[in-house]
Amino acid sequence: MTTNKIYNFGAGPACLPQEVLNQIKADIPDWYDGMSVMELSHRLPVFMELTQTIEADLRQLLEIPNDFAVLFMHGGARTQFAAVPLNLLQGAKTADYLVTGIWSSLAYDEAKKYTNAHCVASGESNQFTQIPQSEEWVFTETSPYLHYTDNETIQGVEFHHVPKCEGKWLVSDMTSNILTKPISFENYGAIYASAQKNLGIAGITVVIVRKELLGKTHAFTPSMLDYTVYEKSHSLYNTPPMFCWYVLGLMLKWTKTLGSCEDIASTCREKANLIYDVIDNSGFYTSPIYKAHRSRMNIPFCLPTEELEQLFLQKANEHGLKQLKGHKLVGGCRASIYNAMPVEGVIALRDFMKSFENTYG
Amino acid sequence: MTTNKIYNFGAGPACLPQEVLNQIKADIPDWYDGMSVMELSHRLPVFMELTQTIEADLRQLLEIPNDFAVLFMHGGARTQFAAVPLNLLQGAKTADYLVTGIWSSLAYDEAKKYTNAHCVASGESNQFTQIPQSEEWVFTETSPYLHYTDNETIQGVEFHHVPKCEGKWLVSDMTSNILTKPISFENYGAIYASAQKNLGIAGITVVIVRKELLGKTHAFTPSMLDYTVYEKSHSLYNTPPMFCWYVLGLMLKWTKTLGSCEDIASTCREKANLIYDVIDNSGFYTSPIYKAHRSRMNIPFCLPTEELEQLFLQKANEHGLKQLKGHKLVGGCRASIYNAMPVEGVIALRDFMKSFENTYG
Repeated sequence: MTTNKIYNFGAGPACLPQEVLNQIKADIPDWYDGMSVMELSHRLPVFMELTQTIEADLRQLLEIPNDFAVLFMHGGARTQFAAVPLNLLQGAKTADYLVTGIWSSLAYDEAKKYTNAHCVASGESNQFTQIPQSEEWVFTETSPYLHYTDNETIQGVEFHHVPKCEGKWLVSDMTSNILTKPISFENYGAIYASAQKNLGIAGITVVIVRKELLGKTHAFTPSMLDYTVYEKSHSLYNTPPMFCWYVLGLMLKWTKTLGSCEDIASTCREKANLIYDVIDNSGFYTSPIYKAHRSRMNIPFCLPTEELEQLFLQKANEHGLKQLKGHKLVGGCRASIYNAMPVEGVIALRDFMKSFENTYG
Repeated sequence: MTTNKIYNFGAGPACLPQEVLNQIKADIPDWYDGMSVMELSHRLPVFMELTQTIEADLRQLLEIPNDFAVLFMHGGARTQFAAVPLNLLQGAKTADYLVTGIWSSLAYDEAKKYTNAHCVASGESNQFTQIPQSEEWVFTETSPYLHYTDNETIQGVEFHHVPKCEGKWLVSDMTSNILTKPISFENYGAIYASAQKNLGIAGITVVIVRKELLGKTHAFTPSMLDYTVYEKSHSLYNTPPMFCWYVLGLMLKWTKTLGSCEDIASTCREKANLIYDVIDNSGFYTSPIYKAHRSRMNIPFCLPTEELEQLFLQKANEHGLKQLKGHKLVGGCRASIYNAMPVEGVIALRDFMKSFENTYG
């Protein structure tokens, strides 16, 4: 038991801002006309207006150009691993995939169902601790897009620039770093992100897709994975996950209080540096990740022994610092610090890490 | 404005029991270890245990045989319109569909993407006011299943017996009447239901599928629509819609307090009869639906003129009786009375209908 404030460093579903939690609680049982948002028809004007506000807020925050559609889909980013080739192959016989970690690897595997997917480059030989050098990337001629994962949540590698794409559209999974930096849409065909990191809770996925790419979905595509169906129906083709959509709306309103995406990017860098500085100034903690490719969102780190890692996790938990265990595929520890993690939480972790090193290092 | 208690007759997303709403509110912000259920890893033991309890509760309530798997999927029942043929065609060149309303019609249309779907019979010529007589149903020889919709939410027609199936597996959309009567699983291959009527909130869909039918999914099936993938991963293949799953758990606990499915069926019949009796003893209200096929869940009714319908809806709303407007495709009024609608709510509607008829009839 602890009397410390709780800080939840989970990689997602991740912590929500206190203000958002308070609003969710206040809106039960009466969000509109005596009913909670979970109990309304999605065809009621009040809900349709909410969806319009949400799209407008997202467009404003990310400065999404008008030639992009914004869709709100079921199923998580993993559903997009199939939806991307089904919607964006458009008859092409191959598609290019850059593999920089578990998630991009899984996207690549799913694409093989639908096309002769081609691996442009893979970081696997380096255990995904760095992004392969772009000079070594080998594109196919006919792929209409290059798929990549802008931030690998498990390994903790992140792109800090727009990848080269040789005239193809970029298609990016930005699940774990959307709304943490400005996006230059120029080279993008589509960007997608499930909500449970920076956009709210699990169960809804945002897809931002260039309108000129719509209307050419593979005939075999389930309607519920068809971008064109969502665009025509304003994402109300079937009953949407309304509560998830509502929380997304609260998150966007809250995110707007943080400033612009430039402001947020600056805050994210500062928060991440607080932890990376501890690691780099320590002979105790280590980061396996190549410095220039380190994620600002997910910071994996190791201690000298597994016993110390277990003790670290136990003591951190007692101290109110939760969900710091690394993903089972890579082990170690991981601190995930999305927008909802306040700088005070990062400072609490930094201080705890220093104190733990002083005691056990 | 009204000082009456609010009763929400929406067809879904439908009203939740007050006890469930209270629990949701109480569990924010601290459901487990200082965190809400929206902020946890789905790999934490506490969440995995919740999923096991949910499956056990559903199995107990519906007396699901052990040779059926229970899956919890993303995407709503409409995703199942594609998932059913993708998973259950198993190489067959045709599939039989019984069309008794909008939803079964849409399921039939989606199946045409994947097979030479065959309409066994359609109630369309009667505006879906009755189920076509089974003597007139024409099956194909090679279809592995007969798909039908046990309760048509929009039209308000319901099966009060298990349809004949000529040795094929029955596959049923029970979205709007699951957990309102016992199910005899003998002839069923699969049953599915999205949650926003009797199982909780939009964003999660239960699929109960005969285990012997797993493992033969079409190669083109997105993993997120693949029953076998869900079964192997205990529905944790990706981050599930955790909050929806949690509310489903609360709903099942609450449903158990109502007794067995036989008890619930009896209550549903009594509640529905309160409204049908007003209609049938009135020269004012009319039901378009053939008596033997009337739904216990969704009761559409008409008033003598559209002006009176508008006035009825307005006065009912002022009286605290919400969301009684019929679906835009059929017009009129509709009272949806799922398990969460207390008998007091149905009595309030009955009394209001009588009083309105006395004043304006």
